[in-house]
Amino acid sequence: MQSAIHEITGRITAPDEKSSLQAVLHLNNLTKPPGSLGRLEALAVQLAGISSTVKPSYTKRTVVVMAADHGVCSEGVSAFPQEVTLQMAFNFLTGGAAVNVLARQGNAEVQFVDIGINGELSHPDLIARKVRMGTDNMAVGPAMSRDEALQALLVGVQVAEEAVQNGTDLFITGEMGIGNTTASAAILCAFENVSPELAVGRGTGIDDAQLRNKIRVVNQAIHINQPNAADPLDVLSKVGGLEIAGLAGVILGAAANRVPVVLDGFISGAAALVARALAPESISYMISSHVSGEQGHRLMLQRLGLEPLLDLGLRLGEGTGGALCLHLIDAVSHIMNEMATFESAGVSGAEIGNQ
Amino acid sequence: MQSAIHEITGRITAPDEKSSLQAVLHLNNLTKPPGSLGRLEALAVQLAGISSTVKPSYTKRTVVVMAADHGVCSEGVSAFPQEVTLQMAFNFLTGGAAVNVLARQGNAEVQFVDIGINGELSHPDLIARKVRMGTDNMAVGPAMSRDEALQALLVGVQVAEEAVQNGTDLFITGEMGIGNTTASAAILCAFENVSPELAVGRGTGIDDAQLRNKIRVVNQAIHINQPNAADPLDVLSKVGGLEIAGLAGVILGAAANRVPVVLDGFISGAAALVARALAPESISYMISSHVSGEQGHRLMLQRLGLEPLLDLGLRLGEGTGGALCLHLIDAVSHIMNEMATFESAGVSGAEIGNQ
Repeated sequence: MQSAIHEITGRITAPDEKSSLQAVLHLNNLTKPPGSLGRLEALAVQLAGISSTVKPSYTKRTVVVMAADHGVCSEGVSAFPQEVTLQMAFNFLTGGAAVNVLARQGNAEVQFVDIGINGELSHPDLIARKVRMGTDNMAVGPAMSRDEALQALLVGVQVAEEAVQNGTDLFITGEMGIGNTTASAAILCAFENVSPELAVGRGTGIDDAQLRNKIRVVNQAIHINQPNAADPLDVLSKVGGLEIAGLAGVILGAAANRVPVVLDGFISGAAALVARALAPESISYMISSHVSGEQGHRLMLQRLGLEPLLDLGLRLGEGTGGALCLHLIDAVSHIMNEMATFESAGVSGAEIGNQ
Repeated sequence: MQSAIHEITGRITAPDEKSSLQAVLHLNNLTKPPGSLGRLEALAVQLAGISSTVKPSYTKRTVVVMAADHGVCSEGVSAFPQEVTLQMAFNFLTGGAAVNVLARQGNAEVQFVDIGINGELSHPDLIARKVRMGTDNMAVGPAMSRDEALQALLVGVQVAEEAVQNGTDLFITGEMGIGNTTASAAILCAFENVSPELAVGRGTGIDDAQLRNKIRVVNQAIHINQPNAADPLDVLSKVGGLEIAGLAGVILGAAANRVPVVLDGFISGAAALVARALAPESISYMISSHVSGEQGHRLMLQRLGLEPLLDLGLRLGEGTGGALCLHLIDAVSHIMNEMATFESAGVSGAEIGNQ
């Protein structure tokens, strides 16, 4: 099974630098002052490199929502009870959750994957790939076994590979799992040697006392499990989550297929830390959609070296920020495909003497 | 003519507080932690108040692009020659400019208004309302007469009123005018007693020596003209621009008709300063789409008390940031109209004991 990971990470190579350079040249010919489209220009250059075209167009976008439960909920780390993961699963499957709404707006399909919900559910649209009924409480021992973490990672790879075979040319990562900001904070602490005080946030909206408790829980999980930052599967299994493992697999699967992957918020960022640790070049295929209101996310993005596109104080997860950001990716497509050049429009460029 | 301004400002009243409160209640019933949609929730509350509905939907959006020239260009304040305003006019009218591309994406119509281009142009789609052939050089005297400023303001009001009569339910402000970041910086200095060093930026991309010269020019314009901050038309005529006056009129016309108006960047912000000075309540109808890369814009928004939605380093103007932001307004519509409530989805709310 370990060899399956090596197979996928071995396929991840650098983006196409030549297309990126062509994108820079094209941008400088468009009727606007050079650089005046700011971050959209950087995004255009990145997308050109990933998709090997100066004029990209993404017609099949897939939001992969991985859902799982967390044993650490028994430590009182969330404002919502664990059952909400299962209850919300039906909401995703019937199209009523925020990410469904925003994905429809962004012309994206939502794939909902049960990778570890602590309960039974069935629905014609459910992708049922349960590895186990939620994790164990990481505050008293490993969240899961190394084999289970590997299984969950491979579920993500397979979901991504199948989606690509079905035409997906853009991924958005999403998730649902009461307790998963706790696991994500622990992953940030483990990989980046960050103190839990900086990594832990209020998640769904806990109060000051609960926040102190959540920090204690993450501290304890790190202390008891001693995750080894040099061994990504060790971190993932000891203080991670099944949906986080699955999303790390989706990211690897996307990168191996040279498909851009839009990261949502804090939990997606934790998956990105895992993916990068397994395959450093995978970072080139990631787009950070937004920096969330969750404490720790800005620091996490800095450590990933990713600059977020949006900063709207979102802290909902699910893939909502990722879905919102599709619009900016489409804006890049339209700009690269439709804007006039100085020559075609008969417009004078910047005055040489003035430059 | 002055009485026409009083007529329009007299019609601007406070938004509908009851609808805003209903929006808060609806947001708290949706299947998400309270407040977790961040700035989108604040936008939902504002739009409810403006449009008197909890579930707004904007079907006819109009980008008003006001174009004019600036006599101050003779001071060497821009990287582009003044003729580019006229050249770009054709680009707008034939759909090749960035704002055309982004407006199409956002399902918005672009209305291009010649309110003071220094040259003749004709095109079936042109809205020809030229007040004069560009302004005079504000570094040596008033940019225009008080009457001309008033005329230009009323052009904006009329354009807005006609658009509303034709069904426009959302405005975006845009502009084109080589030299207009210089006039906008001078307006910021005049109204807010800001030093030119903080207000003046690089516009289309000038170098350090040109930046020092541009600061000197704004200093000189303020010193020579002594604009009176307590008299908005005095500021507008002495150190403003025809397109800035026109956009101030569009903002007033939008607010008087209870139609939201999305501000683009630095030049739109200068128009907003004028509009607010004439009718303080007009600020309630304004949405700041983005903070631009132009130095002075962040400070300008702070002085306006507006929080921008996007921060993408855009510094192109035209209405590009405003058009991009339509997506977030549509996201609010979709969220308010389509998301499930806790009750409808059978999802548990936050645990009382944990709150």
